[in-house]
Amino acid sequence: MAREPVQGKFITLEGGDGSGKSTQCRLLAEFLATRGIDCVVTREPGGAPGADEIRELILTGEPDRWDAVGETLLFNAARRNHIRLTIRPALAAGKWVISDRFADSTMAYQGYGNQLGEAAVRTIQDFAVGDFNPDLTFILDLPAEEGLRRTEGRTHDEDRFEKMDLAFHERLRGGFHEIARKHPDRCVLVDASGAIDAIQQEMRDILVARLAP
Amino acid sequence: MAREPVQGKFITLEGGDGSGKSTQCRLLAEFLATRGIDCVVTREPGGAPGADEIRELILTGEPDRWDAVGETLLFNAARRNHIRLTIRPALAAGKWVISDRFADSTMAYQGYGNQLGEAAVRTIQDFAVGDFNPDLTFILDLPAEEGLRRTEGRTHDEDRFEKMDLAFHERLRGGFHEIARKHPDRCVLVDASGAIDAIQQEMRDILVARLAP
Repeated sequence: MAREPVQGKFITLEGGDGSGKSTQCRLLAEFLATRGIDCVVTREPGGAPGADEIRELILTGEPDRWDAVGETLLFNAARRNHIRLTIRPALAAGKWVISDRFADSTMAYQGYGNQLGEAAVRTIQDFAVGDFNPDLTFILDLPAEEGLRRTEGRTHDEDRFEKMDLAFHERLRGGFHEIARKHPDRCVLVDASGAIDAIQQEMRDILVARLAP
Repeated sequence: MAREPVQGKFITLEGGDGSGKSTQCRLLAEFLATRGIDCVVTREPGGAPGADEIRELILTGEPDRWDAVGETLLFNAARRNHIRLTIRPALAAGKWVISDRFADSTMAYQGYGNQLGEAAVRTIQDFAVGDFNPDLTFILDLPAEEGLRRTEGRTHDEDRFEKMDLAFHERLRGGFHEIARKHPDRCVLVDASGAIDAIQQEMRDILVARLAP
């Protein structure tokens, strides 16, 4: 799916669990609102009819029900709907879209964390979403131990990936670094170990410099 | 996923809706039982935990919820589970498996019917199932009008593809013919316009000649 000429911009936040993505998404939307920009905040997996049901399928239930190949197919099927039914229509209407996770998460988790490899995951993503890329991606970076520590206290049903071991989370972080290195025009690595407000300020400065809202 | 050396054989029945696949599956299993062969009869989409929920996701609900790309990803995610959790374990236990639809259906429906193309669908199937192929595939062949006529009276919720127009079903049939032509060692095209018993007898003769149960 190609991007049509649109007015809105598409921003994604990526990173491991516990890196503060959802809080930073909300604060970014508040900032854009002060500039008069109408913003849709969404998330993956999910964010559209069908995609939310896939989210439920993947993140709950028996942990060994899906293997990494199955997850890659499901996440991309959900992403396809997310783009078709939510992101593209919003951008076409001139809105900006901020998504808590997008395609880089599948690359980092399944490609690097689960070691399916960059090429295999890229092939599936090319089929599912083509060259539909974000205008700007913030990768919230945290040492693997720190991310795990932050999610320890959480109690919810969607803890499929939080249960993975430290080695998985090390590979995951390495994957995000690799993605940032390969796509410097689109991606910015942000140190997520500091205070929420300071991180948000850094993101706003980058956003203003890159997309001039 | 490669096939391990196994005792059981894997047989698939393919064809459009109304071609009599489910009846013929049952009769084939009855025949194999008379030869002392323990047989698992299964179907796609579905046939395993997770896969049955994907079946529900795809075949019910709003018809435009999934496009052909999304369907291809979902069918293959379901197929992955079907193989991992149902087909392989049965074959490894020495059972034979008869599946009502398998990978050729995705190729025929999405690749040819929806015109995604052979190469694109092949790429996704290679990722999802590798070279896990049936030992024998019966393609039940029927003129498109005849298949549509036979399904007209059916009332059920899973009529997503039955609602497609005649041109779709013509492409679908052409796709199945193409698959049979490309894989003569595995596939046999069977005229499904005759009497159930006569068709079954032809299938049993082919089965005995090819797999010597």
